[in-house]
Amino acid sequence: MSNLINQNMMEAIDWINKSDNIYLVSHVQPDGDNIGSLLALGLAIKRLKGNVSIIKVDDIPSDFMFLPNIDMIKEQDINKPIDLLISLDCSDLGRLGIGKEFALKANIVINIDHHISNDNFGHINIVSPSSAATAEIVYDFINKMGVLIDKDIATCLYTGISTDTGSFTYSNTSYKTHLIAAELLKTGIDADYININLYQNRSMIRTKLFIDSLNSLETYLDDKVGLVMITQDMLKQNNAKMEDTEGIISFIKGIDSVEVACLLKEMDQREIKVSLRSKRYIDVSRICSKFNGGGHVRAAGCTIYEEILDAKKLILNEIISNFR
Amino acid sequence: MSNLINQNMMEAIDWINKSDNIYLVSHVQPDGDNIGSLLALGLAIKRLKGNVSIIKVDDIPSDFMFLPNIDMIKEQDINKPIDLLISLDCSDLGRLGIGKEFALKANIVINIDHHISNDNFGHINIVSPSSAATAEIVYDFINKMGVLIDKDIATCLYTGISTDTGSFTYSNTSYKTHLIAAELLKTGIDADYININLYQNRSMIRTKLFIDSLNSLETYLDDKVGLVMITQDMLKQNNAKMEDTEGIISFIKGIDSVEVACLLKEMDQREIKVSLRSKRYIDVSRICSKFNGGGHVRAAGCTIYEEILDAKKLILNEIISNFR
Ligand SMILES: [Mn+2]
Ligand SMILES: [Mn+2]
Repeated sequence: MSNLINQNMMEAIDWINKSDNIYLVSHVQPDGDNIGSLLALGLAIKRLKGNVSIIKVDDIPSDFMFLPNIDMIKEQDINKPIDLLISLDCSDLGRLGIGKEFALKANIVINIDHHISNDNFGHINIVSPSSAATAEIVYDFINKMGVLIDKDIATCLYTGISTDTGSFTYSNTSYKTHLIAAELLKTGIDADYININLYQNRSMIRTKLFIDSLNSLETYLDDKVGLVMITQDMLKQNNAKMEDTEGIISFIKGIDSVEVACLLKEMDQREIKVSLRSKRYIDVSRICSKFNGGGHVRAAGCTIYEEILDAKKLILNEIISNFR
Repeated sequence: MSNLINQNMMEAIDWINKSDNIYLVSHVQPDGDNIGSLLALGLAIKRLKGNVSIIKVDDIPSDFMFLPNIDMIKEQDINKPIDLLISLDCSDLGRLGIGKEFALKANIVINIDHHISNDNFGHINIVSPSSAATAEIVYDFINKMGVLIDKDIATCLYTGISTDTGSFTYSNTSYKTHLIAAELLKTGIDADYININLYQNRSMIRTKLFIDSLNSLETYLDDKVGLVMITQDMLKQNNAKMEDTEGIISFIKGIDSVEVACLLKEMDQREIKVSLRSKRYIDVSRICSKFNGGGHVRAAGCTIYEEILDAKKLILNEIISNFR
């Protein structure tokens, strides 16, 4: 942790100590780091102050319903007073959904995040892009608060760290990530139970869509490019939603020869969401920027407003031209 | 580490220091912990003594060919003198294949392992069932030897630990596992490169067999039992070998409703290898023991000498009766 982050943490803790109506919020389309960080800090502040409110801004994926005190995340009344709002794992106010209104109303906004794209929208900004997960920062923060990290808090932090690092496999995983995981396991959490809930909990609908979609796996350029299309028809046939496509793109990327994995999702007849992943050397954010999309070097996305087969041709041409 | 293990480690290091012709060996059908532990200790002894021989007792899966100094594992001449043999990750002499002959010829045998079933076949036994991987024990051992764990050694140890813990998800993962992983990352290893090689390196043949086999996924007992059969015909159609079935059973277990995942492999017309995995409460070793097989509570296997459809009926009946 840098000096600046340390200093901002101490200032933030000061505000927590002297504020009455404290709200926590995270981004829409919640992931494990979002939910895990919210609950962990929520529980810690509750221990310290007796009371805290966590704002629900979107549906919680069923994968995370096993987390302790998940009911703390609920819809809140915007008309009540807000002294302090803490935003977690969110790069800008826009991503907070209705949470943005709470933030605009709050006297003080604390912004705790690890996204490099974070625009420092808070009065106090605790932004650490070298942290693998916001839950890593929250781990340090709770320790600085002087609250004991018990099993419940540790379960939430472990969930945040594990999901944001692909169970310690992504390149964001540092030695510090493992040190924190060691400390969390020491509290006696049931990591086996957590991992079963996180990684062995695929619904039958999702399983069937997965199998169905892989039957139409296409490869190009000596199998260096792998591509799958998910149409609205396929969703209907499997009684599935577009969010049930999770896991497909990383399976494609898991093929040894594949450098670029491509998933096309037919959101509407002429609205195709494209997700790209690369393994070693292709910059997929550059490819997506051609279609007004963006992202990172190894993971990016864009939307192409064409019929799905036309969208496929367009993105394939762009991908292939990047191999030259 | 217990006192006894500590003491035995010191005695083993004494023998390494005073022996000339040192051989390392591990079990047949090598896995990541096997190869990783062999190479790590091999490199460490080479630093210390200048010379060491690693006995190749089986083909090395292509997954591990990226490891540094993999060429150190090679066929050795049984007729040369053997002062000291160190067996790694192997529960009994029988599992060493031709390595057993080297062991019987050696003056001193050191047995380093983490299997609870280890029968202490060595003159010196360093057996620690609480260790998630033999590579964890080797990490301590090399430190005690006073050899610096450099990037190459750390890459091999990380591979052993990661593969034996399902990338830190299995219940054998302890806080110590994460502490060691932290130390290994500190040496500056390229964990991203290792993880791509370990987990994003599925051959196209394996990918196609995977998709093919999942098309015949069957479920029973309200989807609490998931079953897949791999026949010799399927292998032929996909130009695959039986070892290419890896990953299938854990995908089945990954379905939320599934408690028992079952994979039937037709080795021969009337020789069906059965693999069982359970998630939370069924003891699959008990089921397999009915067919003279065995294993652990959550992972076990047996062979049924019947046609594949008959074998399926037999194992399904036994599985279902265990749910009552
Ligand atoms: Mn995050
Ligand atoms: Mn092992």
